[in-house]
Amino acid sequence: MNAVATGSAASLVELTELNQAYADCLDSGDLCAWPNFFTPDGVYKAQGRENFDRGLPLTAMFCEGRGMFEDRVTVITKIMVYAPRYLRHVVSAPRVLGVTGPLICARASFSIFHTLPHEPTTLLSVGRYEDEVLLDAAGEMKFRLRVAVYDSLLIPNSLVYPL
Amino acid sequence: MNAVATGSAASLVELTELNQAYADCLDSGDLCAWPNFFTPDGVYKAQGRENFDRGLPLTAMFCEGRGMFEDRVTVITKIMVYAPRYLRHVVSAPRVLGVTGPLICARASFSIFHTLPHEPTTLLSVGRYEDEVLLDAAGEMKFRLRVAVYDSLLIPNSLVYPL
Amino acid sequence: MNAVATGSAASLVELTELNQAYADCLDSGDLCAWPNFFTPDGVYKAQGRENFDRGLPLTAMFCEGRGMFEDRVTVITKIMVYAPRYLRHVVSAPRVLGVTGPLICARASFSIFHTLPHEPTTLLSVGRYEDEVLLDAAGEMKFRLRVAVYDSLLIPNSLVYPL
Repeated sequence: MNAVATGSAASLVELTELNQAYADCLDSGDLCAWPNFFTPDGVYKAQGRENFDRGLPLTAMFCEGRGMFEDRVTVITKIMVYAPRYLRHVVSAPRVLGVTGPLICARASFSIFHTLPHEPTTLLSVGRYEDEVLLDAAGEMKFRLRVAVYDSLLIPNSLVYPL
Repeated sequence: MNAVATGSAASLVELTELNQAYADCLDSGDLCAWPNFFTPDGVYKAQGRENFDRGLPLTAMFCEGRGMFEDRVTVITKIMVYAPRYLRHVVSAPRVLGVTGPLICARASFSIFHTLPHEPTTLLSVGRYEDEVLLDAAGEMKFRLRVAVYDSLLIPNSLVYPL
Repeated sequence: MNAVATGSAASLVELTELNQAYADCLDSGDLCAWPNFFTPDGVYKAQGRENFDRGLPLTAMFCEGRGMFEDRVTVITKIMVYAPRYLRHVVSAPRVLGVTGPLICARASFSIFHTLPHEPTTLLSVGRYEDEVLLDAAGEMKFRLRVAVYDSLLIPNSLVYPL
């Protein structure tokens, strides 16, 4: 299947920008802006590849609907106790896997690095995003579903932020 | 040299899709689809940077023509004995280095990570792809030549899959 | 903010090519070509994220104007003593953060790996480029300012090459 056949070059540019803006949001620590990347009833999962591939339900992180996203942000920014860290996402170009009316199914690979104080930078996680993207009323792309499927089944330290 | 001068934006979109689809094929473990990324007389090499840069012939993996590709797939999927592992490619945007009639010469950088059972994800290899790409009769891009030139001269464990 | 709103798809293609050509220049060891990526009065900084984010002046590397760039190239290629190494940049797609007349402000994330002789490849640095880009008289994009803001505050070994 060919990108040109399934999505226009313009929507690839917009998808790329969506992915990079999402990564920037997390890397800059601006977690409060994270829920805005999703539709109001959007779903986010961080799920191990073994479970995703077998259709099993267990996830490391799960949010459905704006309220759960905002809860998660509150937990991370105000309640959890953890060492401060820098994140850095390096995300591949997206692939459009299919277009059904206004819905775009897309995939991209990610590598995420983190840096804790006084420590060298290490690899946090690699995997792929499996996405369902919609245009909202303002014509902006939002995730109706983003599953961060991580290959890295041993999570170093703990998973604080969304992937 | 400028991408816009040497290749249209449309062919960059298609090249990007080719690179990402190739990566996806290997990362998903769908090795049987791997030969389809090449022309029937296509060539694949995985070669250390020292040898490539000096024009020396030794490669870690070499396939020429559909038969050798299919042999390699059979060896990997049915004969070799190795621990199962997940691969993850994060590939940069491609550069068009030149266009000669229907032939596009292109380059992209890769980082490849692998995850073995019960082990943290580690870096497998980094390097660059040196590619010669043609449109086939159906208008799809195929590799006439892909050389995966790896910087990582010490291969951790062993090289099971193509890069 | 949306890429389509702030920059045309064509300028994203050119920015991507600029970033990849810059990475290629350093990865191929062609350091003499490095100053040409900047305007004659261009500025390059490699700066730790802590300092950049607080507006502090200390940088690990600083060049302003063609003379300082050429000095740096001479120092690296003729004077410094260090083990030879391969660099490999894997750079994300760029984001256009704003356009003011001919000036484009852009950002991209980088991961940089290095390989020393007889050693496995390791991560050198991750971070982001904060760029100001202009078209020169020949219509080519050049950096008026590139700040390589590295997350990796512990630099393994030493920083020989620009990031």
